[in-house]
Amino acid sequence: MHWAISRRAQQLTSSAIREILKVTERPEVISFAGGLPSPATFPVAAMEQAVARVFADNPHAALQYTATEGYLPLREFIARRHGVDVERVLITTGSQQALDLLAKVLIDPGSPVLVETPSYLGALQAFSLFEPEFVSLPSDDQGLQPEALTAELTAGARFLYALPNFQNPTGRRMPLERRQALVQRARELNVLLIEDDPYGELSYTGNQLPTLLSMNPDGVIYMGSFSKVLAPGLRLGYVIAPPELHFKLCQAKQASDLHTPSFTQRVAYETIRDGLLDTHIPTIRELYGNQCRYMLDALARHMPAGVKWNQPEGGMFIWMSLPEGLDSMAILQEAVKRNVAYVPGAPFFATNPRQNTLRLAFVTVPPERIEQGVAILGKLFAEAIAAQAGHAKAA
Amino acid sequence: MHWAISRRAQQLTSSAIREILKVTERPEVISFAGGLPSPATFPVAAMEQAVARVFADNPHAALQYTATEGYLPLREFIARRHGVDVERVLITTGSQQALDLLAKVLIDPGSPVLVETPSYLGALQAFSLFEPEFVSLPSDDQGLQPEALTAELTAGARFLYALPNFQNPTGRRMPLERRQALVQRARELNVLLIEDDPYGELSYTGNQLPTLLSMNPDGVIYMGSFSKVLAPGLRLGYVIAPPELHFKLCQAKQASDLHTPSFTQRVAYETIRDGLLDTHIPTIRELYGNQCRYMLDALARHMPAGVKWNQPEGGMFIWMSLPEGLDSMAILQEAVKRNVAYVPGAPFFATNPRQNTLRLAFVTVPPERIEQGVAILGKLFAEAIAAQAGHAKAA
Repeated sequence: MHWAISRRAQQLTSSAIREILKVTERPEVISFAGGLPSPATFPVAAMEQAVARVFADNPHAALQYTATEGYLPLREFIARRHGVDVERVLITTGSQQALDLLAKVLIDPGSPVLVETPSYLGALQAFSLFEPEFVSLPSDDQGLQPEALTAELTAGARFLYALPNFQNPTGRRMPLERRQALVQRARELNVLLIEDDPYGELSYTGNQLPTLLSMNPDGVIYMGSFSKVLAPGLRLGYVIAPPELHFKLCQAKQASDLHTPSFTQRVAYETIRDGLLDTHIPTIRELYGNQCRYMLDALARHMPAGVKWNQPEGGMFIWMSLPEGLDSMAILQEAVKRNVAYVPGAPFFATNPRQNTLRLAFVTVPPERIEQGVAILGKLFAEAIAAQAGHAKAA
Repeated sequence: MHWAISRRAQQLTSSAIREILKVTERPEVISFAGGLPSPATFPVAAMEQAVARVFADNPHAALQYTATEGYLPLREFIARRHGVDVERVLITTGSQQALDLLAKVLIDPGSPVLVETPSYLGALQAFSLFEPEFVSLPSDDQGLQPEALTAELTAGARFLYALPNFQNPTGRRMPLERRQALVQRARELNVLLIEDDPYGELSYTGNQLPTLLSMNPDGVIYMGSFSKVLAPGLRLGYVIAPPELHFKLCQAKQASDLHTPSFTQRVAYETIRDGLLDTHIPTIRELYGNQCRYMLDALARHMPAGVKWNQPEGGMFIWMSLPEGLDSMAILQEAVKRNVAYVPGAPFFATNPRQNTLRLAFVTVPPERIEQGVAILGKLFAEAIAAQAGHAKAA
């Protein structure tokens, strides 16, 4: 028997992330590849108490179907935190689902969609299923360059997708002035902004910058997540959108999974309702800040000349560039033989992949293994650079 | 500011189900409209113990990201139950998500999709977002008529979507001979079957018929759900598919929500691992069988001549036809004024809606209120029939 597969499914290829995660399951591999938060940050005891309260209070409601929009007290909590009307808040099954719903509601085949260079791979995958025409926007170490946004570049764009805070994969953060300029340019050009913000709370110093949402609530769709501040296994995210779009997103969500589990929504709400995040998030910031410093110190010690990386002020990732001409995907094969893994940068580019880039994740690796893994990579990259120089000489 | 909405989102209209559920939230309304299982069937104590085990055993794994395919022990449980290879099992966020993933992977705009007459509204909504061309197949009180499947009718069809057991909305079940004939015809015509089976276990006598899956595992995609045998608030469903399609569904799921919550998957597995379903499901059957009999008895007492309904052997629904020319949607307005609700049948038809049909749900309404509500409806329908006769005489 044979079947016809949809055009969108035909273009689905095996995900680089999936294949890499398989490799790194071997315990001897020092993996800087995973995008997982540290399980040490999961507030297990608080959640266990929260579950007990859910069972004590109203277990049948927690186990029954509920409204597509989500559990009202949780939506109200989110609305208060962002200073928006609760009617704009939709709970999603992880923020990955918000990406899927936004794509469903906003993308037609061939629609221009504006993304940062590079951008979050999971978003590129979610959007790709709806066959947009990606436009990669000029970006540098501080993120998107708002002055590069022109009427020509943004013509017909359904939206501009941005991760202003400690972006996955680069770890970079967009400064305040750029945020203001971006919101201003988007308004002038009538471009809808999607602000994806899973890492905003993870500023190591606690210094947070205003969201794009706060600068123009009617022109920005904001995506938030509990995956990095509570636990990803709950699959709880949310999207804040202007009323007309909120309504369409709810309709699309109803067709997608009816609603996010009532049970996990109530557990999350009971966990955070009395202020847990205010005491809990600082502990994550401290851990991740320390982990980042261990890796930055190791990089400074072990990386050969010609290798560049940034100094994140928050989040879970460091972005690295090898000298032009080196291919981080090819080098990964050798790295894995030496029991170290990272994610090659190319899949994060919607267009014109830069093969010499890579992403390093540091939050789950113990300090001594960071040191050990970075030393191995430093040696490997030095060899690759030397080999390249040898080739150049020979040629 | 204005935005362009995708073509698929433009055609999303407000759901009849949603609007009706809003009306029936008033406590004085006797609602036969809801599709909710009875909360009395939720195994709360067993689930509370299961949660305690999840926290005792490995809370960090339950709260971390997991594989897109789902929690392996739960997948193995399902595979054993259906006698299939575990590699074919994908856990979904409710079986609604399976519909969305199947649509993503199998439907192109304009693709013919074959459905029963009538069919499940949630499936029609999920498929509609991907803009198929629906073909409604000849069906009667015993479901789909396999002998009506011709090469002409099925030409180019991406799949045939069937609910052989106690279908939502009709409550009808397809007899064994029809199942065999359907699988045989589908094989001959090279039509992929999708078997949606949330109610299969809810045969009042416990008499279950073989699944289409069991008759041709390589030509049938099977969708199951824990919503009717455990609790819908967990949002746990699954899809069993031939390997090539399983792989595509996993890729689509990764882009849709990465994975179904690890936490709910483990809670469900811990709840059922030691055989709970074997003792629990018979209690649901007994309750629903009694509820169905209460309603059938009340219908026999109160419905006027000309109104027809079926005698379900399982599930949660009775399907009713008013005399031709009556419009159940128009009559619903009056019914709600008299504090009784049902779901009009028209939205369940992919094409050529039959306005005189309606769906009655009986599992959550206490017997005395069933009696009371059916009496009100009987009177109302008698009035509508009399008014129609009056109009006919006048004309």
